[in-house]
Amino acid sequence: MHGIARQDGTMTSPAGQQPSGVRRPRQARSIDSWERILEAGTKLLVEGGWEAMTITAVCKEAKVTAPTIYSRVDGLSGLFWAVYERGMQNVLTTQDSYLEEASETPRESLSRLSAVIDVVAKTFEEHKAFLQPVIRYASVNESLLGRGSAQSRALVQAMADLLPGNDPRNAFEVCQTLYTEVVFRSMYGGTFLNDEGETFEEFESRLLRIVRARLS
Amino acid sequence: MHGIARQDGTMTSPAGQQPSGVRRPRQARSIDSWERILEAGTKLLVEGGWEAMTITAVCKEAKVTAPTIYSRVDGLSGLFWAVYERGMQNVLTTQDSYLEEASETPRESLSRLSAVIDVVAKTFEEHKAFLQPVIRYASVNESLLGRGSAQSRALVQAMADLLPGNDPRNAFEVCQTLYTEVVFRSMYGGTFLNDEGETFEEFESRLLRIVRARLS
Repeated sequence: MHGIARQDGTMTSPAGQQPSGVRRPRQARSIDSWERILEAGTKLLVEGGWEAMTITAVCKEAKVTAPTIYSRVDGLSGLFWAVYERGMQNVLTTQDSYLEEASETPRESLSRLSAVIDVVAKTFEEHKAFLQPVIRYASVNESLLGRGSAQSRALVQAMADLLPGNDPRNAFEVCQTLYTEVVFRSMYGGTFLNDEGETFEEFESRLLRIVRARLS
Repeated sequence: MHGIARQDGTMTSPAGQQPSGVRRPRQARSIDSWERILEAGTKLLVEGGWEAMTITAVCKEAKVTAPTIYSRVDGLSGLFWAVYERGMQNVLTTQDSYLEEASETPRESLSRLSAVIDVVAKTFEEHKAFLQPVIRYASVNESLLGRGSAQSRALVQAMADLLPGNDPRNAFEVCQTLYTEVVFRSMYGGTFLNDEGETFEEFESRLLRIVRARLS
């Protein structure tokens, strides 16, 4: 039922069941045009959601012809996953650096708690342009939901492992709530439940109150 | 950028800036066909999202002609808001009955806390088929986001007013988290962060742990 509008007016879903299966380019010129294709797909996604990422639009934006795309991936579904995997790679790099930072704080300190909050809050803040359309689309696409679910559980568990205390279930639940709050903010912004709008600093302070209440 | 696919392949957004402005029918036969139109719109929405709710599809489902719809509302945008307002009326009726129930419990009791959780958790559970497409669409439609925001703040405040304790900001924040958890579950289900899947009862127990930690 859900999907993107094709030029002929029919609907199709960009994300099929398979991962991207990219046939990686080897020649410098091919590497360059493949990179332009991924950049174009990402730009269209960020500006207009998955609905805007069509083969035609990517060709126009990247200044390539359709066969150039089809030589790398099997149509729109493959291109979707290639753009997704590239974007998620950037997200995971950011996330891992915040996890690393958090692990270097003293375990039983307030700075540990703040650093664990940063892992999810700052990662999503920095990548919100990419993550917002991904999160929105995941609510109607089973494959994407499955991938998002696996990655989100790993993130929540990694955060929970960094929290002080000796109640792993409690730690997981706290991080689950942090994750949920961050996803909600990514989707609806800081003004949805606050007249004046909650700044990012205020948001992080509120998350700290949530964590401290559950760990005391 | 976002919207629904029309038969000619162009994109249009079903929700304009105005409320529905329904020209209410008076004759029994007109009342009956208008009711069938709203039922059809709701059914299409629930089964296929807003993308599926087109004038053509509603005509087919409700067995009416397009002029019958246009005699009541100004096109798809008006029909969208009429279907939305009718659905939200049902949601608010459920919500108010749970608020009433909660207000009848002793303020300083555990049953008060559970009853406040029920207000948002059970209301969303009972109306999830309608609320899921609404919530999803709100992430890309400003007017809908604004209406949802106003109604959500009122709900969170009404719940906060029922909580024991004398820290109104804390009470509001707790209910904000409850609301966020419920919206997240409506969107992504009970298996997103839990391998085995969180049942509705387990979900309510987890919400109770969140509330108790913040109110102790």
